[in-house]
Order: sequence, then C-alpha cells, then structure tokens
Amino acid sequence: MDRHFLFEQIKQRQTFLCVGLDSDPKKMPQCVFDLHDPVFEFNRAIIDATAPYCVAYKPNLAFYEAFGLKGMESFVKTVDYLKERYPHHLIIADAKRGDIGNTSEMYARTFFEEYDVDALTVAPYMGEDSVTPFLQYDGHWVVLLALTSNKGAHDFQLMEDANGERLFEKVLRQSQQWGTEENMMYVVGATQGRMFEDVRRIAPRHFLLVPGVGAQGGSLEEVCRYGMNDECGLLVNSSRGIIYASSDDHFAEIAGNKARELQQQMAEQLKQHGIL
Amino acid sequence: MDRHFLFEQIKQRQTFLCVGLDSDPKKMPQCVFDLHDPVFEFNRAIIDATAPYCVAYKPNLAFYEAFGLKGMESFVKTVDYLKERYPHHLIIADAKRGDIGNTSEMYARTFFEEYDVDALTVAPYMGEDSVTPFLQYDGHWVVLLALTSNKGAHDFQLMEDANGERLFEKVLRQSQQWGTEENMMYVVGATQGRMFEDVRRIAPRHFLLVPGVGAQGGSLEEVCRYGMNDECGLLVNSSRGIIYASSDDHFAEIAGNKARELQQQMAEQLKQHGIL
Repeated sequence: MDRHFLFEQIKQRQTFLCVGLDSDPKKMPQCVFDLHDPVFEFNRAIIDATAPYCVAYKPNLAFYEAFGLKGMESFVKTVDYLKERYPHHLIIADAKRGDIGNTSEMYARTFFEEYDVDALTVAPYMGEDSVTPFLQYDGHWVVLLALTSNKGAHDFQLMEDANGERLFEKVLRQSQQWGTEENMMYVVGATQGRMFEDVRRIAPRHFLLVPGVGAQGGSLEEVCRYGMNDECGLLVNSSRGIIYASSDDHFAEIAGNKARELQQQMAEQLKQHGIL
Repeated sequence: MDRHFLFEQIKQRQTFLCVGLDSDPKKMPQCVFDLHDPVFEFNRAIIDATAPYCVAYKPNLAFYEAFGLKGMESFVKTVDYLKERYPHHLIIADAKRGDIGNTSEMYARTFFEEYDVDALTVAPYMGEDSVTPFLQYDGHWVVLLALTSNKGAHDFQLMEDANGERLFEKVLRQSQQWGTEENMMYVVGATQGRMFEDVRRIAPRHFLLVPGVGAQGGSLEEVCRYGMNDECGLLVNSSRGIIYASSDDHFAEIAGNKARELQQQMAEQLKQHGIL
C-alpha cells in the first residue's frame, strides 16, 4: 500500500487509528475458547467490529510466537482474513526484527513474501545493512524504531553526542539516506509529548506509528498538536484499550465502541488541522 | 545451563566453538531434499558430525521463520533433537528480540518455556524493561547485542557522548545493573579487533558470543588475544564456514572436519592462555 493510498483511506474513514492485535489468551473472553482457534476467532470478531473506525491493524508477533506453531497458525489466518476481507487496511507486523544483512534478507522474505504484510517494525541498533534489505520490496514499509513509548526508551535513545544530537535523532537523520518517506515510517511513542517537535524537525513528512495512547498514558491531543502534518502523518495505535475493553460475550461490540470513540476524536483532530 | 557447567564443557571438549545453524535451503546440498524435512535432516547431519568439536549451537530464527509454519517445525525438531541427544550443548536461539515489558514477557515465555532453549539474543535499543523479562528464568541466558560484527555496527554503536563513552560501552555498563555474569552474555563481533580490550575493561568476567570468524573475516587469534579471560569467556561462532563447507553427499563429514580444525585452533588458544 503506498503513501497516497494510505492518506486517502485516512480522509475517507476520518481516522488514523491502528488497532493492535496483541491477542493474549490470558486476557481474552471466555466465550471464544469454545471455538476451534480461539486467537483467530477473537481477532476476527475484533476486526469485524473495528474495521470502519481504523486504517491499520498491527498484530504483535510476540503474542503469536508465544504459542509456538499453533500461535503462528493463528497469525497467518488473521493476516489472510484481513487481506481477503479488508484489503484497504494496512497490515503492520510488529516484530522489531533486524540482523546482519544476509539474515535481514531472510526476515524480509518471511514478512514481505511468505506472510505478505504491508509493513514491519525494525530495530535500528545494527545499522544500515540490517535495515536496507527490508527496503527492497515495492509497496512495503519499514517502520523503524526511533523513540519508543516505554520507560526504557530513556536508557539509550536519549544519549547525546558532543554536538547535542541524541541517538533517536541520529537514527531519524541517518536512516533517511537508506529509505524515503514513501517506504519508511518511524515509531515514536505517544508518551514522548513535545519531543514530537524534535522528531518533526528531522522528519517532517514521514508517517509516524505512535503506540502508547491508552494503557501507557499518552495523550492523543498532544500527539496531534506536535506530531501531525498536512497529510496527517500519524498512525496512532491502541491495543489493550480496545481489544480488552470488555471480557464478556459482547467484547467485540464494546471494542467497536472504543474504536469509534477514538475515531471521533481523530476526526475532530483532522478537522482542526484542516485535513477534513 | 549455568556458567560453571559451560566452563567445564569447554575444558572437557577443549573447544569454545558455537556452530551457527543458519540453514538456508538455497545453500543446502541436493541430497537432503529427498528426505521428509530437509532443513531438519540437514541440521541433524551437521549436529551429529560437529558435536564433539563444539559446546553450543545457534540456530538463527530468520532462516526458519522464512519458511513459515514448516520452517518453525524444523526449528522445533532441531531444538528437541539437541536436547535429547546432546543435553550438554548450549542452545542459543539467535532471534534478537526486544520490545516493551509486557511484550518481552511474551517473547521470554516463547523461547524459555515453549521452546526451552538455554539462551536468546536480545537487542538493547528499547532499554531496561525490554531486557529484564528475559532475566527472570533461572538457568537461562540473555545474550545482549553490544558491538556487532557487521558494517552497520559503525552507524550507531560507536556514537560517543560528551564524556567519550560510546553507545556499546553504555550498553555494557548499564545492563550490568539488570543482569549478572551468571545470566547475561554479550555479542561482540570478531571483526572488532582491539575493541575487545574496551569491552573487557567494562565486562571482564562475562561470556562473549563472538560471530564473524570465517565468512565475515574476523581472526580467532586476535579475538583470543584481546577477549579471552581465565575462564575462557568466549563462545566463538562459525556458521557458513562450517555448514556450507561442501555441498556434495559428504557435506556432514566435511563440516565435521571444518569444526575439528577450529576445535584444534581453539585448544591451542586455551593452552596458550593457561586454561588447559
């Protein structure tokens, strides 16, 4: 899916919500456990209920790998279901991969050929040759970690060199020699507040994937104030706040309601910024 | 497997070789493709031929994930085979995982409960809460990326703060507040030469997992000169140089010969350093 198409979807559905499919059997409602593949059935119900209110889905591989081959089967079925039923929604595999060149090539093949998702989160620690193999696939995206939403983001990402440039800024700047705003996005946590201004100084046009609204405490309004550009430029993710909003039989309906609430707030932001 | 036991294995077999199982069907010999699970059969033959000459195996997940569910089946069978036949060999899953706390917990469950490997490579970019969940498993190891063997290692890992401390040094120093030399190792590339001295200044006692000897051009002798400590403290990995040494019907025998050559060089190093 290309950048222009993504922006069209955002305007059409008046939302830049990404729903995180962190589907953990420990938190899923009892009612899905009577079905053959509970994780897939949970995802399918969540997807059907939330699709009108979002433009992207982000299954986090950790939650599927944790159940071995069975878990990966649920992941594959979820991706196939999305591609068949909702081909206009972006699928981001949240896997945070990255290795030496020949190994990253294998990961790229996995995610962009075998599973054929649209986008993959990638960790930058190993530098250029760990990232560029993912950029060889037309119509696919690298979503590079820049400034994450967690507490540990402060351990290394804010490290400052003698010229005052911080590690996440170096990642933003150097990686623009490897990819473009047409095939690269960045992860910037919603908890980072005004640091979105620093991000936008270096990467004004790139889409940012923004986790951390909801369970992690980030503010949508603040993210938009400092991070939105005139083509939106944001995909704001919510996982736990939507998919575990209820654990009773009506969990999908409640998840849909939560997604719609966020969609409405997002529509408001898009209007305020003159995009709608 | 604990540190003491690992050192005993090194002395007993006179080797600190780790064989990397980067099993790529494109490079595997024709003869294995007649069998039911070629990747597993290739691994089994390599393992049987090399086990006397090494103390560890390191399957790289990228090469298994690339073939979807079938690939992961080969991975699981390989791990199970190792655990049953060679329980005294350390199994390192090279997966370079790392995510926010609740997600790293899921990855830890995957690798240390579901697959039950001994060790896992972890990327440090997201900081403390992305690493500590892996340290909660007794007898298991985090192998944290510090200074990798690839060209891209220079992009960010050598970034220097105003006090002259480089990113990889900060990773080595700060991570010692999270784990100990009993449950944490570091990846340091064989291509890094005298920088092993800088690593040993900060982490004198930790085991280092050293990729990059062979195909990537690192020197065993140099690694030992600057990196070996009085309990060896090194696991030197070779993947392509061993497992693809030959592509004819005798591939396993040739791989065994290559592993034995390395074992003999390693025994020599262990003697020179007064360990044998």
